[in-house]
Amino acid sequence: MQNKNMLMIPGPTPVPESVLLAMAQHPIGHRGQDFNQIISEISQNLKWLHQTKEDVLMLTASGTGAMEAAIINFLSSGDSVLIGNNGKFGERWVNVARAFGLKVDEIRAEWGEPLDPEMFKDKLMNDKSKKIKAVIVTHSETSTGVLNDLETINKYTKEHGEALIIVDAVTSLGTVNLPIDKWELDVVASGAQKGYMIPPGLGFVSVSQKAWKAYQNSNLPKFYLDLGAYKKAINNNSFPFTPPVNLIYGLQIALRIMKAEGLAQMFTRHQKLAQATRIAIKTLGLNLLATDESASYAITAVSSSKIDITNICYVMKEKFNIILAAGQDHMKGKIFRIGHLGFICERDILTTITCLETTLQLLGDTSIVSGKAVSEALKFLP
Amino acid sequence: MQNKNMLMIPGPTPVPESVLLAMAQHPIGHRGQDFNQIISEISQNLKWLHQTKEDVLMLTASGTGAMEAAIINFLSSGDSVLIGNNGKFGERWVNVARAFGLKVDEIRAEWGEPLDPEMFKDKLMNDKSKKIKAVIVTHSETSTGVLNDLETINKYTKEHGEALIIVDAVTSLGTVNLPIDKWELDVVASGAQKGYMIPPGLGFVSVSQKAWKAYQNSNLPKFYLDLGAYKKAINNNSFPFTPPVNLIYGLQIALRIMKAEGLAQMFTRHQKLAQATRIAIKTLGLNLLATDESASYAITAVSSSKIDITNICYVMKEKFNIILAAGQDHMKGKIFRIGHLGFICERDILTTITCLETTLQLLGDTSIVSGKAVSEALKFLP
Repeated sequence: MQNKNMLMIPGPTPVPESVLLAMAQHPIGHRGQDFNQIISEISQNLKWLHQTKEDVLMLTASGTGAMEAAIINFLSSGDSVLIGNNGKFGERWVNVARAFGLKVDEIRAEWGEPLDPEMFKDKLMNDKSKKIKAVIVTHSETSTGVLNDLETINKYTKEHGEALIIVDAVTSLGTVNLPIDKWELDVVASGAQKGYMIPPGLGFVSVSQKAWKAYQNSNLPKFYLDLGAYKKAINNNSFPFTPPVNLIYGLQIALRIMKAEGLAQMFTRHQKLAQATRIAIKTLGLNLLATDESASYAITAVSSSKIDITNICYVMKEKFNIILAAGQDHMKGKIFRIGHLGFICERDILTTITCLETTLQLLGDTSIVSGKAVSEALKFLP
Repeated sequence: MQNKNMLMIPGPTPVPESVLLAMAQHPIGHRGQDFNQIISEISQNLKWLHQTKEDVLMLTASGTGAMEAAIINFLSSGDSVLIGNNGKFGERWVNVARAFGLKVDEIRAEWGEPLDPEMFKDKLMNDKSKKIKAVIVTHSETSTGVLNDLETINKYTKEHGEALIIVDAVTSLGTVNLPIDKWELDVVASGAQKGYMIPPGLGFVSVSQKAWKAYQNSNLPKFYLDLGAYKKAINNNSFPFTPPVNLIYGLQIALRIMKAEGLAQMFTRHQKLAQATRIAIKTLGLNLLATDESASYAITAVSSSKIDITNICYVMKEKFNIILAAGQDHMKGKIFRIGHLGFICERDILTTITCLETTLQLLGDTSIVSGKAVSEALKFLP
């Protein structure tokens, strides 16, 4: 059935109708006072969402553009960086850093496993000459549904004293507590089509005072993603280059929706949705890629030893119009991923579980007890 | 009066309601077949609009991002380039090129004057050792309403034989004939919020086979704006990074509207709108910054020796809700600019002229003969 699709992928995520309708307004000039006022409101609310007093800069770019900006503004050619790589987006950090001539030392873990903070500790403690200029970590690894222990890795980075901590919070911002100022995170990158509940097209970067000092010494070439220009402009509630005006309309509304819910409530909601999803998956006899201890609240990755993953996704789409995300790279055909971040409520999880249960039955899984997965999930959705 | 604004600025330009409503649809996944089909249609139509057989690449970026991509993918650090600079956007080319360590030789003209192609000829003819790797030109200079003689500059570049020709077509694409394959233009950058009739947030770059050869030797660091990745992806009707899905919905509709009008009709319409605007401005006793011979069809820049420019813009906005663009940099307060590109019809020009006439009268200009400017304009709007 056309137009009946339900997005349960980790981005783009569903968008509230009030946001969509805001985006359907005629654009206004981005150099006028009316627009400045919108930016003024958004800037304040972005600081609230990021739990920071510093400016959060907005780029006309997808998340990868924000990640690139997070590197090229604060580092120089030949700088040594320590990058956590346990999935597609950790790998992307490595690729971006190498493209700009950084010396990359990787801390690796298998896809589905969390990064081991102690491995960061070893490298950082042994760096007596303070060669490591930045520790770069993906908080919630979208490709596997693993939440890395950023708090502990950051603690060791702080003990090192020199290195910046640069974070991909693309699927963690708004889904799990990320107190940027309290933890003194230096650079945090994120993207619109995730917890923000708006369509893709905007990247965000928060920058600490320590990072701005590093900016002064960065020699990597930049113009479009030169955050100094964005910082200067945002002080006047403006942009150095034309911003995506209609997406900004949507962001204004989405941030109001978030503020009305409250940070603590947002985090609790995502936690519950993740827990309900996970127990339902287990009850259905499917396998969770990430352990309970390292599970992201935003995404659940699922494998199966009994039913072909590709068939599950196919039936979910064709029969129920529910879109799940496939595995990426070598995980293709081995896992599917359920996105449950942003504009997702309890009903969406129950719907997904119910349809997944029926899908498995249709695919010949006789072990399923009808209704059991939903009733288990409900234990986490009081 | 709220929500009654009429945008007569050179971007964002007005957006058709069918485009706005398309953008208000729920996003779909950018890795699915439904999205691939949209991209397939858009790709074909972008080739039609660009008059090229080559792929036109789409970036989640504003026009400046597309300009940067047009430089960093085809040149190397220390390369010599010849850049035309006769306005804000010529100057931006210079700034981008310098930020990436290129050796810039500028061909300059005053703001409001066109670039002199013979000056390009001299430099190119004297470059016996073929050191000049690219000639970089702004086609329609948005800051002044000057259309540079790209055809002749390009002819001299072709006689040079080695240099690429790189073009900023941000306000010329869709407003004036720009036959990319026929003229063998190597790299042409443009942006959404102009002739495309969609809100800002997408940049476009067309790339010739000659430019792709240069891409192989380019050593400038890049990742997010690495056009090789976009080229590889567009062959599968896809993107390397998340595209702005909702803006893509709008682009699909806008390109259909353009195709229904036809290229020749689009160019004729813009020419008539420019001519009507220009004769009306003269009739009102105001001054045109660009001569008739070098006038852009997209923007008309206006100065006045009798009434303060800032007051004119103020009354136009406050009384008639018509938004004109101010001058940029040293032209601030010295000119205003009327954008008449994209989704603009004859009625919009007549409306603007009528209100401008009344504004001048309100500001005490007793030389105005009521109705004369409109009747002069009508000579070009049969």
